[in-house]
This record gives sequence, structure tokens and C-alpha cells, in this order.
Amino acid sequence: MTHFLGYRCSVCGAQYAPDEVTYTCPADGGNLDVVLDYAALKRRGMADLIIADDRSLWRYLPLLPVRDPGGEQTPLRRAGGTPMYAPPLLSRNLGLAHLWIKDESPNPTASFKDRASAVVVARAREIGAEVVVTASTGNAGAALAGMAAAVGHQAVIFAPRTAPPAKIAQLRVFGAQVLLVDGNYDAAFDLSIEAANAFGWYCRNTGYNPFTAEGKKTAAFEIWEQLRGRLSPARRLSVFVSVGDGNIISGLHKGFKDLHALGLLDEIGGMPRIFGVQSENSAAIANAFAAGTEEIEPVHATTLADSISVDLPRDGLRAVRAATQTGGAYLTVSDEAILQAIPALGRVGIFAEPAGATAYAGLAVAVQQGLVVPEEPVVVINTGSGLKDVKSAMRAAGEAPIIEPTLAAVRRIMAV
Amino acid sequence: MTHFLGYRCSVCGAQYAPDEVTYTCPADGGNLDVVLDYAALKRRGMADLIIADDRSLWRYLPLLPVRDPGGEQTPLRRAGGTPMYAPPLLSRNLGLAHLWIKDESPNPTASFKDRASAVVVARAREIGAEVVVTASTGNAGAALAGMAAAVGHQAVIFAPRTAPPAKIAQLRVFGAQVLLVDGNYDAAFDLSIEAANAFGWYCRNTGYNPFTAEGKKTAAFEIWEQLRGRLSPARRLSVFVSVGDGNIISGLHKGFKDLHALGLLDEIGGMPRIFGVQSENSAAIANAFAAGTEEIEPVHATTLADSISVDLPRDGLRAVRAATQTGGAYLTVSDEAILQAIPALGRVGIFAEPAGATAYAGLAVAVQQGLVVPEEPVVVINTGSGLKDVKSAMRAAGEAPIIEPTLAAVRRIMAV
Repeated sequence: MTHFLGYRCSVCGAQYAPDEVTYTCPADGGNLDVVLDYAALKRRGMADLIIADDRSLWRYLPLLPVRDPGGEQTPLRRAGGTPMYAPPLLSRNLGLAHLWIKDESPNPTASFKDRASAVVVARAREIGAEVVVTASTGNAGAALAGMAAAVGHQAVIFAPRTAPPAKIAQLRVFGAQVLLVDGNYDAAFDLSIEAANAFGWYCRNTGYNPFTAEGKKTAAFEIWEQLRGRLSPARRLSVFVSVGDGNIISGLHKGFKDLHALGLLDEIGGMPRIFGVQSENSAAIANAFAAGTEEIEPVHATTLADSISVDLPRDGLRAVRAATQTGGAYLTVSDEAILQAIPALGRVGIFAEPAGATAYAGLAVAVQQGLVVPEEPVVVINTGSGLKDVKSAMRAAGEAPIIEPTLAAVRRIMAV
Repeated sequence: MTHFLGYRCSVCGAQYAPDEVTYTCPADGGNLDVVLDYAALKRRGMADLIIADDRSLWRYLPLLPVRDPGGEQTPLRRAGGTPMYAPPLLSRNLGLAHLWIKDESPNPTASFKDRASAVVVARAREIGAEVVVTASTGNAGAALAGMAAAVGHQAVIFAPRTAPPAKIAQLRVFGAQVLLVDGNYDAAFDLSIEAANAFGWYCRNTGYNPFTAEGKKTAAFEIWEQLRGRLSPARRLSVFVSVGDGNIISGLHKGFKDLHALGLLDEIGGMPRIFGVQSENSAAIANAFAAGTEEIEPVHATTLADSISVDLPRDGLRAVRAATQTGGAYLTVSDEAILQAIPALGRVGIFAEPAGATAYAGLAVAVQQGLVVPEEPVVVINTGSGLKDVKSAMRAAGEAPIIEPTLAAVRRIMAV
């Protein structure tokens, strides 16, 4: 039994029943928010809403708009449940009293996107869709391919022909049918939707399928559980996350809104302030925030942080609101600062891809600008493993010295 | 309080107190087994030996020869605790009734080696060694660099000058001092030991430091916990693992021997049979097993599975015994079979590096040869993430088709 009442359009506010629509608002194409029966959930009480012996995102199944997807002892059941680290070195470096890094790299396909794909695959099973499809060259595609493979569903991934062969390889290893579209990302996006409609496939596209944000909101639930009772209302929590198409930050916001509706946010000192961080070379949403509008103007994105390199964010409106409605903000950082943030996180044992390191780079700027003050608690989300983009790690890491095989040479380099 | 009594040489059987030696047997250079006070451990009882609310390898702290290393809320506390998957598709493909894959890729640096490095770093903290050092170009180096960074220790990694820059980058991101030795792996290995001795650094080298196997044995404890009460003595468990220098298989064996000494193996139907799998292009230990000897002859290793490409295995003797003393065996597989095993595992959502896929390839051979029969329960260990070696994944995955951006083109490829 779920508590899934239906959808509400984020643009016009129109409401729909669960089976009335599949993707976006029929009236205006707006992204749909999932509406839950908060009254019924409150009556059950939180102890009944968390499956205590499950450490994955399925721990929060009663708060999700899907039924139990089965797939016990498969990677589908291991998405989420990621660690929260508290590295003293980084706290000292930034002059913050309470800093946590939530690390999404131990997810089954090593990124935050597994949360969305796990819930989308659960929805596909529920509606009897054998084939799931998405347009993606990166983490979302890998996550869908991996989560679908885990439970024997076929995934079809549309990628622009120019997608890096290394990323395509991971999709194919997971048994996905990859179609390299002779066109750009938008052509792949449009064709994936056309094909889904024509062939009865279930489309995961970000900023289109309403269940992705529901999967992603589980990170907010984990932050709440990992910090509950440890924060005071006098100092509101700030959450920093990188932003590309805007769906992760929207999902986080939805999770905190769910907790607010259930009266549970007091346990972490109230609604967290949500800060989105973009590369200045892919800043469509940050631009809108700075201009005080919810209208997103596309950009020509060129950032090296490929997971957040987006010309036209598909979930921009909700992404702007995640900051404006919580007293957060958007920040932009240079690609140089993103690269520098990789070894900064590495120094405490966290290996982030550029998009993951972006959030930490943004926090450094926020501290400089006084947007976050030393006593305030902060969570930074690393959205993906550095192993996803070793080339950028190489650029960030610099060269190692070559030495003769002698103790004297070691002594010179190490000054011992 | 630990139950660490000392060491016993695997060659001559000589015993040493905990602080009497640091690495190998002073008499003959043999690898040392850690000796625990099993009588005292039995008196405590297993319920008291497992820290129930810890999901990492530190869950088994009372069974480890180190004290609590601290480092709460750091990656050091997240090594181990890896999932056990039961993919129906693979069971069907191999005709096995009970098949599990233990997936080590969610470890903090994405390989089995984090188990060893976590315990070695704990030992370094205990003996006051600020600097940890190893010779490695791969997973062991990354694991030491990551685990050391997690708790603010300096890691020094000696690598041959020819090591792949992508692997070096990960070490440097973790803040390790990487020294590229103008020589081969053996030169790096020797220099790392010389430097450790000269400068008071603590050396993690595999097949040299007795604590690596103690970390690795925790995987056996997890297998025991994950399967206890589910196996009958009528069908002994078989465990398949890839073998390079021989330390992982030795560590697994040690873990099962610990459980045997504590009288706990009956819960999984007795001592598992341990099967080592090597590439036929790096088969020094399999050769010794086939020849019925514990003497290891070095080979000229050329396998593409770089994590198990080893000329002279440093833990060969104990690795042979892991099979001979448990009724297991050694198998060799071609590099072609290793590559094919990558998408075979991928089809159920598990992305393995070549060395990880090797164990699965070996199981397929064992089934063909009748070494494992359909009713017998089997665990295969994937030792590392496929993201560690995307180049091999690309070779294994093949090319994706390029299509025009039309439905007709999708229809042709997908036959829908």
C-alpha cells in the first residue's frame, strides 16, 4: 500500500490522479510534483514509516509513491544509504564548526543518480513496462542501465553520437541497448520520448519523469536521519549541492518538504537552506536566480564537469525555487576552482568527480562571501565517484616525481 | 583490549610476541600468521564479538589484532560491509541452485584492498607510525592512500616509472606522495622496504606485512554472517576468488580458520572449499598447485587483468594452502574469458574490473569440469569496481550502433 495521491504541476498547480498522466503536465508541459497523503502518513507515525533493518533508500518505502519492487539481493536494493563524513581537516580549512560531506560514490553505479533510477525502475515494474529508456551520456544512463539490469529489465539509452566511448562502455557492460543518435543531446532527448511513446517503453528522462525527484528526495531523508537531534533551531543547516539540469536539488527540496509536512523538520532545526552550485561555464539556473526570475535562458555550456554541463536545464524552475523558498542561494565557481576541489576532498579520503567537487568549491565561495558563518552546520553532497572521470583527476593531481632507486633520492624528495 | 597473542611463521612455525617482530619471520623471511587467543574469544561468546550496530569491517574489531583506530565518520570506518547479491540469471546460466556474488566495489576506494589498508592504518596508529608506505601501482596503493588520508596520515607510494598515469592520479588526489622509481616493480618493492626501515615508516607491502591478511579475513566473516543458517553440512560452500600475489585468498582462508577455531563454521556447513582463479597469463600459484608443490616459480605475467598480473607472488605458499587445505583447487582462465565475464556480471548490474570478473570466469570452468555440482552453494567475489579499468570494459563491451534520429531507425535496431 502506498500513500500516493497523484501529481501537482509545478507551473500551473493543476492536480492529476496517479494514473491520469505519466510524465509532464498535459496543460503546459510543467514538471509534476508527486503528492502524498501526508495526513495518512502522519497517522501512521514515523516509527512505522522507516523500515529499520533496511540501510538502502528502500528504508523509506512508505514515503515513496511506488510499491516494493522486489529484487531482494540485487543492486536495486543497495541504492542509497550513503555515508556522511565529518572531516576535521576540511572544517579547519574552511573555518566551520560543523561540516559534513555526504558521499554518494558507494552507490551501485557510483553516483547519486542510482536513487532516481531505482525508483523509476520500481515504477516501471508496477505499471508493467518491460523496457525503460532514457537520453543520457553519463551517470543517469549508467544508473538506469545498472538498476534495470539488476532486476532483468531491458534498458535503452539514447546518446549523442559524440558521447565519450568510456561512458558508453559502462552502459553496454550493463546490457543496455545503446543507440548513438546522429545529432546532439536534444535530438537524443526528443527521440527517446518519441520512441517511448511509440513502443510503450517507460521513459526516465530527467526533468520529465516525475519519479526521479522522488528517488532523489531520499538523500534528504538520510541527511535528516543522520543529523536528527544534533542541530539546534538557532543555527539552520545549509546544504550545498552541484546543479546541472536541476533535478537533484529539486529532489532534495521535495524530501525536506515531505519532512516539513510530516512535522519532522524541527529535529534538524527547521528547513535547511539549500545552495545550488554551478560552474560559471554552465550557469543557466544560477543566472535565473541572480536575475530574480524563474524563467531559464539556455546557455552554451562548456564546463569540464560533464555531469552538470547543461545548455537547457529541464528542471530549472523547481531548481530555482529550491534556493528561493529555503533562504538559500546559487553560486558559480570556475572550472579551475572545481579542479582544485578534487584534491581538497581527496585529502580526507573522498574521491569526487568534478561535478561532485563543485559543491565543495561553492561552499568555499559561500564562506568567503559570508553566506555561511562559522557556527552554522553545513552538509556538502559529493554526487559521484572520481573514478567516473579519471581524466579530470589527472589534470587536478599534477605530476609525480621520478627518482633513482636509491634511499638518497627518497631523502631528497621527502626531506627526511 | 585485543586478543592478539603474536605471530607464527607460515614456513618454519616459529612463534613471536606482538612486539618482537614487525613484518616477516627473522629466521627465514616467511609470511607471519597472526595468532589470536581463541580460548579467550570463545569464553566471550560470539554475541560479544560482533559490534551489532557497525556495518563496516570494524564490526569484527574484537577478532582483529588492533585496537579501535578512531576516525569516526571517516572513510576508514566504511571499509567492508559489502553486499552479497543472488542474481537468478547467473544461477540459471551456470545451472547452479545457490549462487551469490560478493561485491567489493562499494568499498571507499572501490576495491577489496580497503580491508587490508584499513587494518594496516589502524596498526600504524597503534605503533605511532605517522607515515605509511607501500609499493603498488594499483588498488593496494589507492586503498592505502585513501585510508591514510581519511585519518590524516601521510602515505608514500613507490611505483615503477611505467605505471599508468590514471592510476597515479588517484593516489595523488588522496594526497599521497608518489615516487616514480626508475626501475621495475621489484625495484619499487625493495626501495619501499629500505625506506621504511631507514625512516621509521610503516610498510604495508602485500605478502610482507602480516596485518593485510587480517583485514582481508573480514570478508570471510561477512560471508559467514550473510549465509549463516542457510547452508547445510551436506553441501559444502565453495568460494571463488581471483589470485595475484595470493594475499586475498590467504586472508579469506585465515578468516575461515578463525571461525573454525571458534567453533562457528558449522553454521555455514563446515569449512568452505576455496578456489583460486588466475589468468593463464599470470599463473605462478596455479602452476605450483598443479605441480603439487608449495614452491612458487616466478612467471613473466602479461594478463590484461592488471590487479592480478604478478611475476613473483609474495604470498604464494599460503595461497596454495588455502586450496589444498580446504579441498579447493586452482583454475586458470584465458584473458578472453576474463573479458567475456565482465558483461556477464554486468547483465545483473555488477560492474567488475578484469581481476574481479576472473573469479566468475573460473567458476564457469569449474562447473564445466564438474568441480562444482549444481546443488552446491557457491560464492564468487568481485574484488574491484569496473570503473578502475574502463579501457578493458571498452574492449569487453564492443561498439554501439549509430542511428539517424528517426523512429524508423530505432525500429530497425530494436526490432519493435
